[in-house]
Amino acid sequence: MRTEIASLGEFGLIDHLTKNNDTLQAGTILSIGDDAAVIDQFGRQSVISTDMLVEGIHFDLMYTPLKHLGYKAVAVNLSDICAMMATPTHITLSIALSNKISVEALEEFYEGVYAACEKYGVDLIGGDTTSTKSGFIISVTAIGEVAPDKYVTRSGARPTDLICVSGNLGAAYLGLQLLEREKKIFLENPGIQPDLQQQAYVIGRILKPEPRADITEWLQENEIVPTSMIDVSDGLSSELLHICGNSNVGCTIYEDKIPVHDETKSVADMFGVSVVTCALSGGEDYELLFTIRQEDYEKVVRNNSISVIGYVTGKDEGAVLQTKGGNKHALTAQGWNAFA
Amino acid sequence: MRTEIASLGEFGLIDHLTKNNDTLQAGTILSIGDDAAVIDQFGRQSVISTDMLVEGIHFDLMYTPLKHLGYKAVAVNLSDICAMMATPTHITLSIALSNKISVEALEEFYEGVYAACEKYGVDLIGGDTTSTKSGFIISVTAIGEVAPDKYVTRSGARPTDLICVSGNLGAAYLGLQLLEREKKIFLENPGIQPDLQQQAYVIGRILKPEPRADITEWLQENEIVPTSMIDVSDGLSSELLHICGNSNVGCTIYEDKIPVHDETKSVADMFGVSVVTCALSGGEDYELLFTIRQEDYEKVVRNNSISVIGYVTGKDEGAVLQTKGGNKHALTAQGWNAFA
Repeated sequence: MRTEIASLGEFGLIDHLTKNNDTLQAGTILSIGDDAAVIDQFGRQSVISTDMLVEGIHFDLMYTPLKHLGYKAVAVNLSDICAMMATPTHITLSIALSNKISVEALEEFYEGVYAACEKYGVDLIGGDTTSTKSGFIISVTAIGEVAPDKYVTRSGARPTDLICVSGNLGAAYLGLQLLEREKKIFLENPGIQPDLQQQAYVIGRILKPEPRADITEWLQENEIVPTSMIDVSDGLSSELLHICGNSNVGCTIYEDKIPVHDETKSVADMFGVSVVTCALSGGEDYELLFTIRQEDYEKVVRNNSISVIGYVTGKDEGAVLQTKGGNKHALTAQGWNAFA
Repeated sequence: MRTEIASLGEFGLIDHLTKNNDTLQAGTILSIGDDAAVIDQFGRQSVISTDMLVEGIHFDLMYTPLKHLGYKAVAVNLSDICAMMATPTHITLSIALSNKISVEALEEFYEGVYAACEKYGVDLIGGDTTSTKSGFIISVTAIGEVAPDKYVTRSGARPTDLICVSGNLGAAYLGLQLLEREKKIFLENPGIQPDLQQQAYVIGRILKPEPRADITEWLQENEIVPTSMIDVSDGLSSELLHICGNSNVGCTIYEDKIPVHDETKSVADMFGVSVVTCALSGGEDYELLFTIRQEDYEKVVRNNSISVIGYVTGKDEGAVLQTKGGNKHALTAQGWNAFA
């Protein structure tokens, strides 16, 4: 018998392979299934997350400057640590590359890695460098620290909690569409130079995402303890469904509350797509999606980088988007099936 | 200007890319350059190591059962943790794979991963699963713990220290040569079934290496604190040169003291190669190479799994192999240049 991996999808595959994963170490507080794992040894808690980026799947070297790629490889892992309300401290970096890549190109990649490490006060402490027959593969493991039991999972959302998201959504997806379009134009007419000045924001969002360590710090400073948290890597819908599934709740979000940048709206209009769809299903925004208790509402609205987009309901009510016109739609997980 | 990666080699490349790696975290005790990194937070010390295995470079799916591959991917990382005299506790596992691999094949791979985790009491706490256009890539990060400042690096060897190695060497390299030969025969004559019964030991050594956690435990129980330690992944010569370089010392080892299994000797004879060369340059044995103070000699010889193969000298004397005939040869690092 042969079952194709594509038939399970990424999340299904992970569930399938890890369903019998026993815990042997007393120090394992939180294992597979959240943004990061939490381990406790001698009372201290470490938060650990890992991500792999594959050329041709997660990035295209034709339009991804290597310095940005290095920066992004670190940033997306730090984002997972932030999504646990933890502070990133260390990373390891393993790369496999073909002889297509020169030492100079690799130096650029590392410049980006070091730039991200410096910006977020993180140390690169180890790694592995090896070869592939083709393609460039990057694997980063990020380690962070959190005060005992102060980490925030995906499973603590309770009905009446408010749903918040940092920054704005949908830009990274549209930035990627622009880069893909320019690549196609370039391949057909190599003489044409792309002019992407007008779309610098959305392109920056796909090429150089930033983990929202500023948001977790602000929440800590203001003594707001989110009841659940996740980073937006696969799109708002998919992440909301993760929180609802893990917390055993439903949710209602309002279309007109979803934060979108003006440039994102313009580019969506240019492509003739709904900017809300981009926000719901686009992914790669690396914003933080979290829930808070109602009593923290007054505090949260003081931060202009945080939008309250809806509230948590009972499980039976499902995950719902309420449109501007007052219609209700069930949220569906487009997610991101790398094997499709 | 374009510099080819092959011109630097693996170690040169890592040195080149990490020479400007600053440490920002006060908790970073030991960074890139040893078997693993050591980080200290609130008095506890964690040991962290990471390795990447690439299809076609590190393994050939034609003769590597997936269960063994999963086991080995974990084992080689635990070996790095053991080589710090630390106890492995957790791993993360990221894989990228093409649709060539079925869910059933992946289940076998995970069976091996879980078998290694169970044997060594380690928890799999996180990972990433994604796709590649071709090839199977595995990235494991291992985490261990060690009592404060009890980790052992490559840099503490002092003249007059004794050089010890666990188990025996050279078998894994010859096991690989056998598998490569059988593959060639099979490709030329698909009807011929290989009979490797007589070489089960050397083949087991390449397909299913074991980290020597038993040796580090025994050393701890017997209160022997090695002055330096490394695991033998690239061959005895290369590892000895790492210890000499990092410790700023020389060494003399005796050809007739290098431990070799009887079957390894037979297979070397069959291939018409020197078994000592296989031990010196073969690699993938995952034994522990370490130095002890002379006063621990009486204790160490009680363990049949440990051989004393030479002693540490001053830097000026270089790294030397003394043959059975009394000749002296400088040890050279064949190492393993994945980019050559």
